[in-house]
Amino acid sequence: MGKMISDKMKRYTQGNSAIRAMFEEGKQMAKKFGKENVYDFSLGNPNVPAPKEVNEAILDIVKNENSLELHGYMSNAGYESVRSEIADFINKKHGTNFNESNIIMTVGAAGGLNVLFKTLLNPGEEVITFAPFFSEYRMYTENYDANLVVISPNTVDFQPNIKEFEEKITVKTKVVIINSPNNPTGVVYSEETLISIGKILEKKSKEFGTDIYIVSDEPYRELVYGDIEVPYVTKYYKNALVGYSFSKSLSLPGERIGYIVIPDEADDSELIKNGAIIATRILGFVNSPSLIQKVVSKCLNCKADIEFYDKNRRILYEALTSYGFECTKPDGAFYLFLKTPNNDDAEFVKTAKKYNILLVGAASFGCPGYVRIAYCVSRQTVENSLPKFKELAKEYSLC
Amino acid sequence: MGKMISDKMKRYTQGNSAIRAMFEEGKQMAKKFGKENVYDFSLGNPNVPAPKEVNEAILDIVKNENSLELHGYMSNAGYESVRSEIADFINKKHGTNFNESNIIMTVGAAGGLNVLFKTLLNPGEEVITFAPFFSEYRMYTENYDANLVVISPNTVDFQPNIKEFEEKITVKTKVVIINSPNNPTGVVYSEETLISIGKILEKKSKEFGTDIYIVSDEPYRELVYGDIEVPYVTKYYKNALVGYSFSKSLSLPGERIGYIVIPDEADDSELIKNGAIIATRILGFVNSPSLIQKVVSKCLNCKADIEFYDKNRRILYEALTSYGFECTKPDGAFYLFLKTPNNDDAEFVKTAKKYNILLVGAASFGCPGYVRIAYCVSRQTVENSLPKFKELAKEYSLC
Repeated sequence: MGKMISDKMKRYTQGNSAIRAMFEEGKQMAKKFGKENVYDFSLGNPNVPAPKEVNEAILDIVKNENSLELHGYMSNAGYESVRSEIADFINKKHGTNFNESNIIMTVGAAGGLNVLFKTLLNPGEEVITFAPFFSEYRMYTENYDANLVVISPNTVDFQPNIKEFEEKITVKTKVVIINSPNNPTGVVYSEETLISIGKILEKKSKEFGTDIYIVSDEPYRELVYGDIEVPYVTKYYKNALVGYSFSKSLSLPGERIGYIVIPDEADDSELIKNGAIIATRILGFVNSPSLIQKVVSKCLNCKADIEFYDKNRRILYEALTSYGFECTKPDGAFYLFLKTPNNDDAEFVKTAKKYNILLVGAASFGCPGYVRIAYCVSRQTVENSLPKFKELAKEYSLC
Repeated sequence: MGKMISDKMKRYTQGNSAIRAMFEEGKQMAKKFGKENVYDFSLGNPNVPAPKEVNEAILDIVKNENSLELHGYMSNAGYESVRSEIADFINKKHGTNFNESNIIMTVGAAGGLNVLFKTLLNPGEEVITFAPFFSEYRMYTENYDANLVVISPNTVDFQPNIKEFEEKITVKTKVVIINSPNNPTGVVYSEETLISIGKILEKKSKEFGTDIYIVSDEPYRELVYGDIEVPYVTKYYKNALVGYSFSKSLSLPGERIGYIVIPDEADDSELIKNGAIIATRILGFVNSPSLIQKVVSKCLNCKADIEFYDKNRRILYEALTSYGFECTKPDGAFYLFLKTPNNDDAEFVKTAKKYNILLVGAASFGCPGYVRIAYCVSRQTVENSLPKFKELAKEYSLC
């Protein structure tokens, strides 16, 4: 038993069965109590459909374009026309100066991050991430035998802990991965934060005689509320690479479509571009799905109905804080980050389950003592959960 | 310069520039002589469009299915209904006994092979392949720090060299990758071949106390001519896993859609299934593209117009052999494998170029002295190339 899959995968399958157990438990609860009586805030899956322009674009393209070209191979980097339109779109929005050679289409952001990590990382090098962080970063890093270095959370405002960051950069540091708007906190990294990170990396790479790349994971870039702006990282540091996904902005997570940005200003830009194109091929992506490439290029100015998420956000934030819970005010993504009253997320998750509320403990994000509430759920789920959250608050004598 | 991408990728980018140079030269020749006067047999890209049922299915699904479910996340393994229909289809066709748990949807065959390799391979283990072989296998193997062991070609009929195979199996052998119909020869491995391979693996795995998996790479399974049958490998060896792609059968190479088959009979079947599902996630595929999953499940009984390839095959085979060239008779795929008269493929490729004929030397497939002719080109290209091939034959005094 178990002697034949790889040792690394054996470890992962063991870890994975815990997640699966939770998922199965949720399904069992829905069966037992009725789906409408279970408040499942555990999954970060869009619940707003794609804007109508997406399906309109599919119909239009399938009816009017040459089928051989539409479903055929193109350059591993993606259709030139699509990449060119994306470059123009970014330039217009952020005042950058990209062209199609700076854009490589990817199988979502997860595909893009793996392509960049494969291109950049030698075994034993280090990837720095700021807690709380998306736990898959650990696997993506281990895929290339590099080591993830976690900077402990700054629980004041969940901007990165800059002091510890500066201390933990070594001669082995190759990549700093950032994620803003952040999963799991919903916090947007400020311009000040990006300037600080950029300055420190310039100083440290000079000190060590190395180049250090920022990889900015941006699936939630378009999901921001009010008049918040998400600064574009390539403007603050020359060795900044971007991984974007349309999964959330267009509610297309199943279609696996995104892109990476490799600016000309980056050191070894040509090598990174060529490397990323080859990595796209040899990791088995070959190219990102062809029809959907063309679809997103026609929907760059569209967005899923983020007003819906915003209203969920405001209802939950106001209610939970009024019950006495301490929450980070989220400016983006669809997550609320809640401090557990007794500083024990495992215990709190268990207690919440008594009220049919399903949450994810943030120990798995490198930030124990907090829980993530994914509010990409129906309005009904949000509204019906409020009395239950209130009971939960009472159990902890918060109100 | 060049100090910042990974050492492995640096090596690949150097190798890749040779391929790019050839591709660029082809484009230059087309510009110089006119596209119709260049006979480009170098690329294995389908040139027959997808059957009309594919676009009909897209329109039907987009108009009638729930958009949130259609473009949303599903299990990393793919939609259960799609996997179930594929299992039924295989069972009906090959008398197997699969269900949806045996099928995992993948990003093409390249994605599927990487998922299986990631699941199975520890660093230092060995993957055996039979020359001539698809050269990307080397990169897929190196992705997981395993070593590719190449069995030299049997140039009599291009069935695998069974004797050398038996000798080269070691305690480190974890995977034997086979590819039938074969790229680059077009040869279909016979039932006798599969029986021999199975018997040897049973013997050797007992001898070494190991399990050895066959991974069958099958993008060309449906592209066979006449009444040739491609035996289904899981019927001949219990530890046989299949990687399938719809790229060629439905002419959808750009859409990146395929599946892997993990039979219950395989040792550690449950672990491999779970491992492969996790590998799908952590390699960054997450799942294969959602809309296209549903499309292929509605087109399982359709095929691109392979009569077209068959006619190209017969025209070229008859003409080339009549000019005195020695060719393997291909039963499948869209490749013709030609022995170079002076046993020097690099020289022959160069000489052919004088006649505007573009071929790929088979040294890159581990079989020097041969060239691959990819006949997935227009009828006009085939017909207009014949007088040029005749001149080429004359230059070598073959006719």
